[in-house]
Amino acid sequence: MIQAFSINIQTYGEKLYEITDEVISKLREIDFDSGHCNLFIQHTSASLLIQENADPSAKYDLEKWISRFIPINDPNYTHVDEGPDDMPSHIKSAITQTSITIPFIDGELMLGTWQGIYLWEHRTARHQRRILVSFVG
Amino acid sequence: MIQAFSINIQTYGEKLYEITDEVISKLREIDFDSGHCNLFIQHTSASLLIQENADPSAKYDLEKWISRFIPINDPNYTHVDEGPDDMPSHIKSAITQTSITIPFIDGELMLGTWQGIYLWEHRTARHQRRILVSFVG
Amino acid sequence: MIQAFSINIQTYGEKLYEITDEVISKLREIDFDSGHCNLFIQHTSASLLIQENADPSAKYDLEKWISRFIPINDPNYTHVDEGPDDMPSHIKSAITQTSITIPFIDGELMLGTWQGIYLWEHRTARHQRRILVSFVG
Repeated sequence: MIQAFSINIQTYGEKLYEITDEVISKLREIDFDSGHCNLFIQHTSASLLIQENADPSAKYDLEKWISRFIPINDPNYTHVDEGPDDMPSHIKSAITQTSITIPFIDGELMLGTWQGIYLWEHRTARHQRRILVSFVG
Repeated sequence: MIQAFSINIQTYGEKLYEITDEVISKLREIDFDSGHCNLFIQHTSASLLIQENADPSAKYDLEKWISRFIPINDPNYTHVDEGPDDMPSHIKSAITQTSITIPFIDGELMLGTWQGIYLWEHRTARHQRRILVSFVG
Repeated sequence: MIQAFSINIQTYGEKLYEITDEVISKLREIDFDSGHCNLFIQHTSASLLIQENADPSAKYDLEKWISRFIPINDPNYTHVDEGPDDMPSHIKSAITQTSITIPFIDGELMLGTWQGIYLWEHRTARHQRRILVSFVG
């Protein structure tokens, strides 16, 4: 059995947007209590990440690190028609996740104590992002 | 229920090989219409990636970027018996994907508009690569 | 149908710990023979990886590479209250895997010939790590 939903997130620049509550609210709507929850982002310049949601400084350092590591003004890029932040966004997405599967058991999403689920927006402009949340069990 | 297939790809050097059509053709063969499609590559020096398949320059820049980032002639490598491109291939695989799960609903693989599925070959010589495609629903 | 287990691993410093046998032993305990096996680590400073388990030098070079790439004493980090190795551990986890799905068919986990499953501990102190192993089919 599968039940599927989509989550739409309006982003406003490169950073981590926590979506844990949105995913759990979809889990509350389904008709079975255990299985695999898959998150799939339908974009190639934004990605998914599970990371610490306790201390905001971890999130801040991750955001700063990825921009130092994959800078915007790299003269090697040829894919520049959509703006200088587009190619770095594809690379940042390639080294993080497009798809994440999390088990849920007896109605509970089995995240660890300090884990949160994030949409990682890599573009600087505002974007409407779509994440599919589907449950198989 | 699970139905499983394998896709065999002959590669000829380090680059991204699109396999979206091969995956969709397996989806056409199964007996149920919704669930989770898992792609699993049975190698550690080639990997999987979902990325933009619209503008070829994005693919080109990704291929060039990973080779600049993880160069072949790093004197730190001790794992050199299988050639100078082998250890970089393991690292490139480690920071991309060995396994990707994509939802399918009503017979449609739920990729975004610009998303394609790629086998990322990291070795320079020709290789026969095997990807398992399995559907659970 | 889902059947779920947890694997607890005592780590003693940053390295790759192979857990392939532990995962296969859980597969032996379930009541169905084909489906998707998901591994999910409930931590954000340790991660999962599928890599070569034949030649130990590949494992060694991966461990050395990640520590050169994401060094401990980067003055840019602000998340330092839990020690100098904590923020690098979050970054190392972000570019590897928190969740991996592997197909199993007729009771066999479909790893390639040279593939092993690893817990990648990124902290220097001893830690108790928990990985959920769940089977859906």
